[in-house]
Amino acid sequence: MFNIFSLKGGISNVKGFFCDGVNVGLKESDEDVAFIRSEVLCDISARFTTNRFQASPIVHFKKYPKDFKTNFLLINSKNANAMTGKKGVEDIDEIFNRLSNYIEIENPIMSSTGVIGYRLDREKITSSFDKFDFNAKNSDRLARAIMTTDSFKKELSFRVELNNGDSFNIAGVCKGAGMINPAMATMLCFITTDAKIPKDDMEELLGYATDKSFNRISVDGDTSTNDTIMLLSNGLSNSYNREAFREALNRITFELAMMILKDGEGANKLIAFEVKGAKDNKEAQKVSRALSNSLLVKTALFGEDPNWGRIASTIGASGVECSEESLEIYYNNLLIYSNEQRELDKIREEKAYKIMKQDSFKIICNLGVGSGEFTSYGCDLSYEYVKINAEYRT
Amino acid sequence: MFNIFSLKGGISNVKGFFCDGVNVGLKESDEDVAFIRSEVLCDISARFTTNRFQASPIVHFKKYPKDFKTNFLLINSKNANAMTGKKGVEDIDEIFNRLSNYIEIENPIMSSTGVIGYRLDREKITSSFDKFDFNAKNSDRLARAIMTTDSFKKELSFRVELNNGDSFNIAGVCKGAGMINPAMATMLCFITTDAKIPKDDMEELLGYATDKSFNRISVDGDTSTNDTIMLLSNGLSNSYNREAFREALNRITFELAMMILKDGEGANKLIAFEVKGAKDNKEAQKVSRALSNSLLVKTALFGEDPNWGRIASTIGASGVECSEESLEIYYNNLLIYSNEQRELDKIREEKAYKIMKQDSFKIICNLGVGSGEFTSYGCDLSYEYVKINAEYRT
Repeated sequence: MFNIFSLKGGISNVKGFFCDGVNVGLKESDEDVAFIRSEVLCDISARFTTNRFQASPIVHFKKYPKDFKTNFLLINSKNANAMTGKKGVEDIDEIFNRLSNYIEIENPIMSSTGVIGYRLDREKITSSFDKFDFNAKNSDRLARAIMTTDSFKKELSFRVELNNGDSFNIAGVCKGAGMINPAMATMLCFITTDAKIPKDDMEELLGYATDKSFNRISVDGDTSTNDTIMLLSNGLSNSYNREAFREALNRITFELAMMILKDGEGANKLIAFEVKGAKDNKEAQKVSRALSNSLLVKTALFGEDPNWGRIASTIGASGVECSEESLEIYYNNLLIYSNEQRELDKIREEKAYKIMKQDSFKIICNLGVGSGEFTSYGCDLSYEYVKINAEYRT
Repeated sequence: MFNIFSLKGGISNVKGFFCDGVNVGLKESDEDVAFIRSEVLCDISARFTTNRFQASPIVHFKKYPKDFKTNFLLINSKNANAMTGKKGVEDIDEIFNRLSNYIEIENPIMSSTGVIGYRLDREKITSSFDKFDFNAKNSDRLARAIMTTDSFKKELSFRVELNNGDSFNIAGVCKGAGMINPAMATMLCFITTDAKIPKDDMEELLGYATDKSFNRISVDGDTSTNDTIMLLSNGLSNSYNREAFREALNRITFELAMMILKDGEGANKLIAFEVKGAKDNKEAQKVSRALSNSLLVKTALFGEDPNWGRIASTIGASGVECSEESLEIYYNNLLIYSNEQRELDKIREEKAYKIMKQDSFKIICNLGVGSGEFTSYGCDLSYEYVKINAEYRT
């Protein structure tokens, strides 16, 4: 038995972790470079983008031996340090070379987000070292520093109390708003904990939590060069319980993923695409992701139009086993389509409008051919999305 | 040797074919029901959508025996007669049952486009029979009747003169603007010819022409329930030459496909995504289609932003063999990215801006790993697209 309590703030709440963010001129005014460091060495578990062009910070990370430990993570926004080749990695080494004059670092790692294809401005980034308070616990500034097109900061933290009186804390911070795809998003997510978690559990539980959260959200179906989720643990609480940790980690990753979706560029609605009755889970996943990525479905959601034809058409185009006769579509609990009830009468159409006006609802598709299930999460597509992404670099 | 001459107008130019379009109240005022008929029986070759939910007109078509001949095609807009089950097919039978009181029909076929999920209004549609001039050659009214979100009609015709003095005509009409995906679009395309073409050639040459045209364009990556391309030949010219016909058919389908793309909902630019140097043609196709479907690429094109990072990222995410070192990206002939030249300097950036301001240009990606090639065609994504598709049904 255990209890999980929400805390105010983020990574500052975790024992032995320090963080800060400053402005060095990458952004016009807001924080743009940040760090997370631990007073003792941390275990790390990380998942990276499946994009073939992995950004330099990821290449740099992978040069360390397996199971390396670290005490320092540097993060910048506005520049992804991606498609920058060997020089992109050398830049990171040089930056850490200079950092070692300021503070003791071991196997430092970096994470970047922003525009692809430009070398880092080493002078600007290293100028942060004079500005950081390395003993700060300022998670608010960290959360702001990693934002790009995000319209709000994304951090949260939990205290986990175990039955035997022991307790540990866990906290997460992330960024992401556009270019979000199931298979990881343009998102960075850093989770820290003082739980004394075995390395094997870290790997397993982070994988599970990622599959149930960040790998199920879609804003626009694009997968970036920099996507990263990282779990850092320093063990300083000296306590651990697998079930409790698993639950807290799942909640952190799911809630952060939903924050990203709510902040989906120009998005107004958060939709769960719940697919049931598919031949198998894989086919359910195929349909669910096709729905959350379909432009026609997304624009119909924005227009609050209960046009189930676009949903049906997307299912039919996804290449899975299905039939007009066995298919059923619901908005929340409202039956929208079945073999017997195809045309929307006025009463059901009115009810459907009401559901679609909500900020958040479910679209449930029962294919009626097997027992495969999958749920993914998406949002609508608005004028704002086009505007944000047409103007991103300028 | 042969010569191909462009004619004014469309299907009216083909010997023995008649066509007309009228308004019966499906649209507020414009033509909404049309026919194409031939004074003698025609051979037919057709390609249909790969969507699992094929619309009722397609199900109806497939009930005829292989190699059937027809003399009548009825077309309506505003209602797709899709996801309407058995009743959707019965409606078509009933409509043709009534038509047989007006004119002699043999194996009549139907084609529909519009909203999914509603039964046809049989009374309205059959009211067209009193309004049609069955001996008209009014391809303009036909071309207008099949439009949905199209902003202009799409028809063209050629006269093919052979060396021996023989000649034949070929003409096409199509509709389509949104929901266009490589693997056929929400598009209907009807091609008629008086060439005396063998049935085997019809099948083979239509397949080839479709693969090189409609199967290479993308507006939004969705594939509809009704997509149809049909070739009708009545042989009345008594002349034929395979090479000449092939050339004329390819030109018709390619030009009609480009018209659809130019009319892509809210689109302002027509882009060729030319992929070379892939491991094989299949991988080249995968990249080319990923680029033409990427929201981030499409919005960057709309913003006229030479942000090659989004192109690179999309290539990397497409799952094909590629590397930062061997990749090259060009806009027309301008090198935008190579291993040696990664950051855009001011001069090349200015040149890139100029290219992107054009209505049409090429994005060439050389993956540098093999000799696979594929070109597909796409357009930008504007505010207008969202507006049109958020409001489509209303």
